[in-house]
Amino acid sequence: MNGQDAFRALPVGRCVTVRKTVGESDVYLFAGITGDLSPNHVDEEYMKTTTYGRRIAHGALLVGLMSHASTKVITDLPGTIVSYGYDRVRFPAACFIGDTVTVTYEITGRDEAAMKTFARVTCTTQRGDVVAAATHILKVVE
Amino acid sequence: MNGQDAFRALPVGRCVTVRKTVGESDVYLFAGITGDLSPNHVDEEYMKTTTYGRRIAHGALLVGLMSHASTKVITDLPGTIVSYGYDRVRFPAACFIGDTVTVTYEITGRDEAAMKTFARVTCTTQRGDVVAAATHILKVVE
Repeated sequence: MNGQDAFRALPVGRCVTVRKTVGESDVYLFAGITGDLSPNHVDEEYMKTTTYGRRIAHGALLVGLMSHASTKVITDLPGTIVSYGYDRVRFPAACFIGDTVTVTYEITGRDEAAMKTFARVTCTTQRGDVVAAATHILKVVE
Repeated sequence: MNGQDAFRALPVGRCVTVRKTVGESDVYLFAGITGDLSPNHVDEEYMKTTTYGRRIAHGALLVGLMSHASTKVITDLPGTIVSYGYDRVRFPAACFIGDTVTVTYEITGRDEAAMKTFARVTCTTQRGDVVAAATHILKVVE
């Protein structure tokens, strides 16, 4: 009954945070891994001509930081738990290279029959800007 | 009217693909960037004891490949176009290290007033398994 034990350890209200300064190396390695070399992320001179003024991190990189937070919430739980998906991922403001992002991950709902949890996840900068937000779904698979 | 020109160049039905073999180095660098060192991704011996049998790629890495496809669809268009977000991101099957993933990105809808496009995005392996699917939203910002 490992899975049941794990699911019980994920009540509504459980909350974790992770925090990281998004460095140029993060954005550049992310561009290389994914192949997303949009000028938005890797062309400082181009970005100076836009309303942003400088390079911004990939939204999908912020989803990766959310993934870190979801792993933290299940650390040391028994059984196998996987990321089922994300609903309504939004990037309301730009995350610039050098911004320090705090990810807050809070369980807000549970589907007992399917052994799924739903969490509100937000990424907030040192300026207080929410640069990414989503609902994340974890599923206990055994 | 750069933005209007860009928006006109993104009709319903426009489709691009990108393809990559997801290497161990991709998964390991992604783990380092995001801090998500879940055993699901970096512990082969643990994964042998699960129903998966071996290490799987981060779902958020597949979202990064979707981001590459979204950048490809807007390459060389004028104006500034950003990723507004994703709806209903799902990971229906496991993507293993060594799998070759084809990302198909097809524009399926447009919001003329908001200058947004909606695209169906799928990541499919050489086995034909859909390992990630989502709706992606692009927004022309100028």
